[in-house]
Amino acid sequence: MINVAVFGYGTVGSGVVEVINDNAELISKRVGDDVKVKYILDLRDFPGDKYENLVTHNVEDILGDPEISIICETMGGTKVPYDYTKRALEAGKSVCTSNKEMVAAYGAELIALAAANNCNYLFEASVGGGIPIIRPINECLTAEKIDCIQGILNGTTNYMLTKMENEGAAYDDVLKEAQEKGYAERNPEADVEGFDACRKIAILSSLMYAETVNYEDIYVEGITKITPADFAYAKKMGKTIKLIAMSKETEDGKFAMVSPRMVGSDSPLSAVKDVFNAILVHSNMLDYSMYYGRGAGKLATASAVVGDVIEAAKNLGKHLPLLWDAKKATVADKDALVQQYFVRVSGGDKAAVTAVFGNVEFVECVDGEFAFVTEAMSEADYKVKAAKLSGIIGMIRM
Amino acid sequence: MINVAVFGYGTVGSGVVEVINDNAELISKRVGDDVKVKYILDLRDFPGDKYENLVTHNVEDILGDPEISIICETMGGTKVPYDYTKRALEAGKSVCTSNKEMVAAYGAELIALAAANNCNYLFEASVGGGIPIIRPINECLTAEKIDCIQGILNGTTNYMLTKMENEGAAYDDVLKEAQEKGYAERNPEADVEGFDACRKIAILSSLMYAETVNYEDIYVEGITKITPADFAYAKKMGKTIKLIAMSKETEDGKFAMVSPRMVGSDSPLSAVKDVFNAILVHSNMLDYSMYYGRGAGKLATASAVVGDVIEAAKNLGKHLPLLWDAKKATVADKDALVQQYFVRVSGGDKAAVTAVFGNVEFVECVDGEFAFVTEAMSEADYKVKAAKLSGIIGMIRM
Repeated sequence: MINVAVFGYGTVGSGVVEVINDNAELISKRVGDDVKVKYILDLRDFPGDKYENLVTHNVEDILGDPEISIICETMGGTKVPYDYTKRALEAGKSVCTSNKEMVAAYGAELIALAAANNCNYLFEASVGGGIPIIRPINECLTAEKIDCIQGILNGTTNYMLTKMENEGAAYDDVLKEAQEKGYAERNPEADVEGFDACRKIAILSSLMYAETVNYEDIYVEGITKITPADFAYAKKMGKTIKLIAMSKETEDGKFAMVSPRMVGSDSPLSAVKDVFNAILVHSNMLDYSMYYGRGAGKLATASAVVGDVIEAAKNLGKHLPLLWDAKKATVADKDALVQQYFVRVSGGDKAAVTAVFGNVEFVECVDGEFAFVTEAMSEADYKVKAAKLSGIIGMIRM
Repeated sequence: MINVAVFGYGTVGSGVVEVINDNAELISKRVGDDVKVKYILDLRDFPGDKYENLVTHNVEDILGDPEISIICETMGGTKVPYDYTKRALEAGKSVCTSNKEMVAAYGAELIALAAANNCNYLFEASVGGGIPIIRPINECLTAEKIDCIQGILNGTTNYMLTKMENEGAAYDDVLKEAQEKGYAERNPEADVEGFDACRKIAILSSLMYAETVNYEDIYVEGITKITPADFAYAKKMGKTIKLIAMSKETEDGKFAMVSPRMVGSDSPLSAVKDVFNAILVHSNMLDYSMYYGRGAGKLATASAVVGDVIEAAKNLGKHLPLLWDAKKATVADKDALVQQYFVRVSGGDKAAVTAVFGNVEFVECVDGEFAFVTEAMSEADYKVKAAKLSGIIGMIRM
């Protein structure tokens, strides 16, 4: 019997308990032993809940219980659970988490602590909900040098952008609808400003570079300025607009950023609709591979936590190596990133554009303005040129 | 130092040697030790080849060398390599293979042999080339009960179907072009008749059911009868036609089959174009997840073999459990499978269709005929009804 404790009986935590119980037989086969939830840690009581009797308010009951070998940290936040996670790992208990803030902030430190105590800190659920992506990077693409990751990592914004694309709706209207449906929160900044996606690409970038990419070092631009006109242009060009969390290593350095991008129909990311997430990985032998599914949701996320519980249970007393060093990665200035730009101009003239930007592709779609697509150039170059041109009303990276 | 032997210096085998050498530093980091190719087994000589000096014609040199702990079997076929694989596993040497015929025919037996000898038989490369799918099923979706797998598992036929869709081209013409480009072989039956996809879905089905699904028990229908008219109808319905290798567990049993299917734009499989492969998995907690990438190619496939080498190297002397029993799975008769059907009728009348099939959706697209989509019913029911109707010129499952 392998005993597990769940820290935090909210959406994901209760999902973890449900998955462990509903798929108990299958999990037992996978592990070669029964897996049981012995405690649920929460400040609240849950009178009438099926697992009411497992609830404790005292973390010491759990950390001091030698029978507990695995902890699921589904509390969220980085203060109290950071302390609990450290103490659990120091006691040789593996920790499986869905807490992306924690992983993004303390991943390398907690992995090292797990290594020192012959246990594991696992976080498959922290990126892409139930989509397998952490373990594929760590245990499948091991013969690959990954040089680019592009992810649609936030379901709320992808739902909103899909609505805007399909219905020509305005940002404010789709946000309101997403809030009514419960997809977006009342304070939607974490989603629409790209902060959620930023934490997730920080984690993936750290795994890609095997060093720590601080989320504070990642340039973030949300979707709040995207308009129906942008989508009209996108449609005319056979493209769509997605919030892309990207990490890319080039000769100019290691880049990481979150921003809206024009995505062509040749990219499999263009077909990722609604609340679905996907991560497109480019590596030196395999070329492109993509991982797709529900990036959020109680059971999807819980299932990833339980997948980690199974991995931890199969490897009790053994640390599974994971390349993520505490050394801080040098994230290159985004001004050095070379890419193309889609630019809208109002009241300008095309001759002026050509004089400044040289060879461009013009697009006409909305009355009183036009747009153009530049050749590939660094953001620094783009800024210098753009400053010379009057009437620019918007730019979206390609 | 971990020493590896490569059996068969063809496309994949030479790719394995290339990946191990080109990504040596990264692999060494992953394994915690250097990995080196010590022997290449092939009947041929390779004068002037960079690794000429590693070539041996004598398998005994390798099987008798205690320094060799891992073998890459990239020979293909099931006679000679079956004997070699068994002897290697009996000697406690892990075997990593891209040989789908072998895995489909002897998977359970070879896994059990590996277990008995504390080594591993790994076959990530046998399905979907470099796309991680075997390990995600075995090591990520472990908290999931998988109830459906739908795969585009053959790049050649997907390339051909994409051409037919985009250009309205006829089957014979796209086959000829695919042969000229080297995507299809001179004897294209293994691809176009669905036999290749059948071996692959047999492997995935066996992992899904944790029992052995014999490929001979899988109903297979290729793409040779698909016409431009079928694609015209598909387009009118907002769908496309894909060769789908499917495994599905319902109340009526365990189904496995390979056949062309009409796929709607709501399925992420519809966006999988050209030579790309994808596997869409449905499971009870996560809902849908999909794995996408190049399903073939020297380096993509070799990379998956080397990923297995790394896994084997990290676990020398330890068998990694894998749920695939030798017990034969009972594959249900496809006549019991419930689904919808797209049916083309020439010279018939709609009243007769409605009289026989009840509520259907009619589609008009090609002169002199019409088509209809049935409600969901078993194949047995469909056959009974279809026999009552004259003028049916084609049926494609939905």
